[in-house]
Amino acid sequence: MKVLAFDADDTLWENEPYFREVEEKFYELLEDYLPRHSTARELLSTEIKNIELYGYGIKSFILSMIETAMHVSDKTISVNAIEKIINLGREMLVKPIVLLPGVEEVLQKFHGKFRLVMATKGDLLDQERKLKQSGLEKYFHHIEIMSEKKEADFEKLIRHLDIKPNEFTMIGNSIKSDVLPVINLGGVGIHVPFHTTWVHETVDVEINHPNFHQVNSISEIVNLMAT
Amino acid sequence: MKVLAFDADDTLWENEPYFREVEEKFYELLEDYLPRHSTARELLSTEIKNIELYGYGIKSFILSMIETAMHVSDKTISVNAIEKIINLGREMLVKPIVLLPGVEEVLQKFHGKFRLVMATKGDLLDQERKLKQSGLEKYFHHIEIMSEKKEADFEKLIRHLDIKPNEFTMIGNSIKSDVLPVINLGGVGIHVPFHTTWVHETVDVEINHPNFHQVNSISEIVNLMAT
Repeated sequence: MKVLAFDADDTLWENEPYFREVEEKFYELLEDYLPRHSTARELLSTEIKNIELYGYGIKSFILSMIETAMHVSDKTISVNAIEKIINLGREMLVKPIVLLPGVEEVLQKFHGKFRLVMATKGDLLDQERKLKQSGLEKYFHHIEIMSEKKEADFEKLIRHLDIKPNEFTMIGNSIKSDVLPVINLGGVGIHVPFHTTWVHETVDVEINHPNFHQVNSISEIVNLMAT
Repeated sequence: MKVLAFDADDTLWENEPYFREVEEKFYELLEDYLPRHSTARELLSTEIKNIELYGYGIKSFILSMIETAMHVSDKTISVNAIEKIINLGREMLVKPIVLLPGVEEVLQKFHGKFRLVMATKGDLLDQERKLKQSGLEKYFHHIEIMSEKKEADFEKLIRHLDIKPNEFTMIGNSIKSDVLPVINLGGVGIHVPFHTTWVHETVDVEINHPNFHQVNSISEIVNLMAT
């Protein structure tokens, strides 16, 4: 094993709970038009529809919320409400970074023993900001901000790192984006579940594969890699 | 010289004219509130203010147009107009790629002789889309989509490419983003002017530097590099 690649959002630091908080405020804003669960469904379907055009990240999220608000309200939403939506998004872009427990210790232990890579989806600038503020930049040999995390994307990354797939381990909280594409390529996938996962990142599969591991917390990876 | 790096927007393909077109439609949309040149000034200042938070690219541009429209109209803008703004942006995200004259021939000539790099600012997904549609991907050894093009960003890129600054040539249409930071680092900067430049990318300096070159069209680089 040469490269350990870490997902960032909800693997190294908190992220999804901030989306949940903003979503709750967004549903509240539209309560006069639709009950919360219906707005939630509308927002999710707008977000998924927009991924192809907008990609991942907070700016896409803002645009999808505006679009949903216009649709749900049949364009009777107030400009004030649209301004509130934009401000909810802007607040997300300046949130302080909260590292998850054990993360820094794990990176310290592996630093120098493996090439450490951060591999994450999202807005380029926002992910760079979070990495800088996290204080973790010094541990990483390479940062890859990806527009998608499908097999072809990991294939490109592995080629770029000049290693073979079986020399690549991906560690992350998304079975769909961090584990499945990597084990399909012949790499190792380690799932570190996080308490909050975006519905679009969930999959309903049971994985029985020699290259798949699941741990309860990121600290357990140290022992796992020793075996 | 080992690496030739090319800016993408308005160096390899048309870009800025699409922004101009959309800006004209945007000014028209707000004509009831403000004369065009005043809206133009408002939009520019909003865009510049937002770069730090949003970065470059079309999604940022959409959000800045919405913010400007709300400000200029004192929040009396209609939701229909906001929808129009979003649709103007969405149309930009599916524009076909129009290569600039001579680009492909130049890349063909240099391919195999230098390591060719594409180094561009903007939205990650959108720049990847444009590269894919351009048919030029095969010529490039490395693609770098950057959140900024300042000295520190080029320093990082040059280190990543494992070369010295004097082995790096940057070719682009922006004196500010493609030329100045690179010649300051000890690399070579070649300016290929484009007829349309965003005001925020213009600088008013006269450059007298042995590592600075200016050509009238990208095709002239072939002879320049031979000398």
